[in-house]
Amino acid sequence: MSGTVLTDLEVAEKLADAARAAILPFFRRPDLQTDNKQQGGYDPVTVADRAAEQAMRAVLAEFRPEDGILGEEFGNVTGSSGRTWVLDPIDGTRGFVSGTPTWGVLIALADATGPVLGVIDQPYIGERFVGHDTGAVMTGPLGQASLSTRKTAALKDAILFTTFPEVGTADEGQAFRAVAEQVQLTRYGMDCYAYALLAAGQVDLVIEAGLKPYDIQAPIAVISAAGGVVTDWQGGPAHLGGQVLAAANPDLHAAALDLLRRA
Amino acid sequence: MSGTVLTDLEVAEKLADAARAAILPFFRRPDLQTDNKQQGGYDPVTVADRAAEQAMRAVLAEFRPEDGILGEEFGNVTGSSGRTWVLDPIDGTRGFVSGTPTWGVLIALADATGPVLGVIDQPYIGERFVGHDTGAVMTGPLGQASLSTRKTAALKDAILFTTFPEVGTADEGQAFRAVAEQVQLTRYGMDCYAYALLAAGQVDLVIEAGLKPYDIQAPIAVISAAGGVVTDWQGGPAHLGGQVLAAANPDLHAAALDLLRRA
Repeated sequence: MSGTVLTDLEVAEKLADAARAAILPFFRRPDLQTDNKQQGGYDPVTVADRAAEQAMRAVLAEFRPEDGILGEEFGNVTGSSGRTWVLDPIDGTRGFVSGTPTWGVLIALADATGPVLGVIDQPYIGERFVGHDTGAVMTGPLGQASLSTRKTAALKDAILFTTFPEVGTADEGQAFRAVAEQVQLTRYGMDCYAYALLAAGQVDLVIEAGLKPYDIQAPIAVISAAGGVVTDWQGGPAHLGGQVLAAANPDLHAAALDLLRRA
Repeated sequence: MSGTVLTDLEVAEKLADAARAAILPFFRRPDLQTDNKQQGGYDPVTVADRAAEQAMRAVLAEFRPEDGILGEEFGNVTGSSGRTWVLDPIDGTRGFVSGTPTWGVLIALADATGPVLGVIDQPYIGERFVGHDTGAVMTGPLGQASLSTRKTAALKDAILFTTFPEVGTADEGQAFRAVAEQVQLTRYGMDCYAYALLAAGQVDLVIEAGLKPYDIQAPIAVISAAGGVVTDWQGGPAHLGGQVLAAANPDLHAAALDLLRRA
């Protein structure tokens, strides 16, 4: 254990830096290795995915040995502090293997109430979106900016994102379309980057289903710190995954939630 | 007219530089102006779109006054050289207003046979994909690389992109799905960036419909120079727009074309 005392935010930045360094040498490599976690499905886990999670676990072993870890690739570590770092080294592996810069490194710090700090990092573009109790900021190609969600009050003026047109089950797809039919514009394919755009005030709604806890805890922290609202499709906490509704503000959240509940 | 003698490639780079400088100050601005070209539709034309095309037209007035211009925003200029610069300052305006880095500046130089030089530029990421008679290269966050399409021979191993799930008319959507059902992975929402990924050897197929000439001439030049094949859905030239099939290699092109023709 190091004698250096870092804040949680500094640890989170170190984690994101470590993941970036581990992943970037593999992005867009023609000989990239993938293997198949789900028999019959297409869920590539790249060498980069595993290397990044190992690199992040090494950072935590040094700077936060008392905290627990929930990671996508290597399972759980129980800590003694009551706090858990939730790691998804490459969220959006299908985007990653397609070369799109829509995947991201997701890092959250959660306590018993849910995520209290989150990072969405896009290593290729060099963008980092961070949310915590003292605010939400991004750094990227155009410099640094504070994050603030949109004020869009009506669904008819909203931009909606999800990753796959089918969204989830047939019922989930139908519920999604009940909202999609009311909005100005629906777009697909952005993986976790859609949540970053919501926090940055670029889009209004993200609706997904079938998420894992490590897919959504970092987005919850970033979006909440930027003024948005993230719940499940019944209006309850979303940090355990499943169906997720993220909205730019409480009014828009209520309007979308009403349609999802009725569908 | 300047006394400076620039190659066509140098002129193309100047055009892309001018468009970048004109567009970037407007990207992700919360007060971005949009207006509506199509009554009842959603086709925002931003201030940036117009500013970039004007900046590019100024470059051509200085360095290629004898060439014609076909631009999305300001119409045609007839030249005396038999050559035409084809400009789409922001291809993917819906992506642009959503903040996704999937839009691009498209620049092509065409003669009577079609496009002979093309640039796909993504200003926010800082990526430029260039194809011409002596080769295809990209520059971006990871440096410079030559562009070479994939060797994927079978549809079952292919990654397919299009921008909207509906693709075009009902018949066009059905034809698209005939191919989509055979491939390994179908993804959406990448605008012109999908063509750049095809040239870069990241994806195998892009299928779209309802394109304009300025949407596809630059991608044709870049993809052709990288080893790919771009035609319409009957196997004929695609540079006048409409239905477009872009494939990483002739074998894959033939396999997809067969399904599109039969659907």
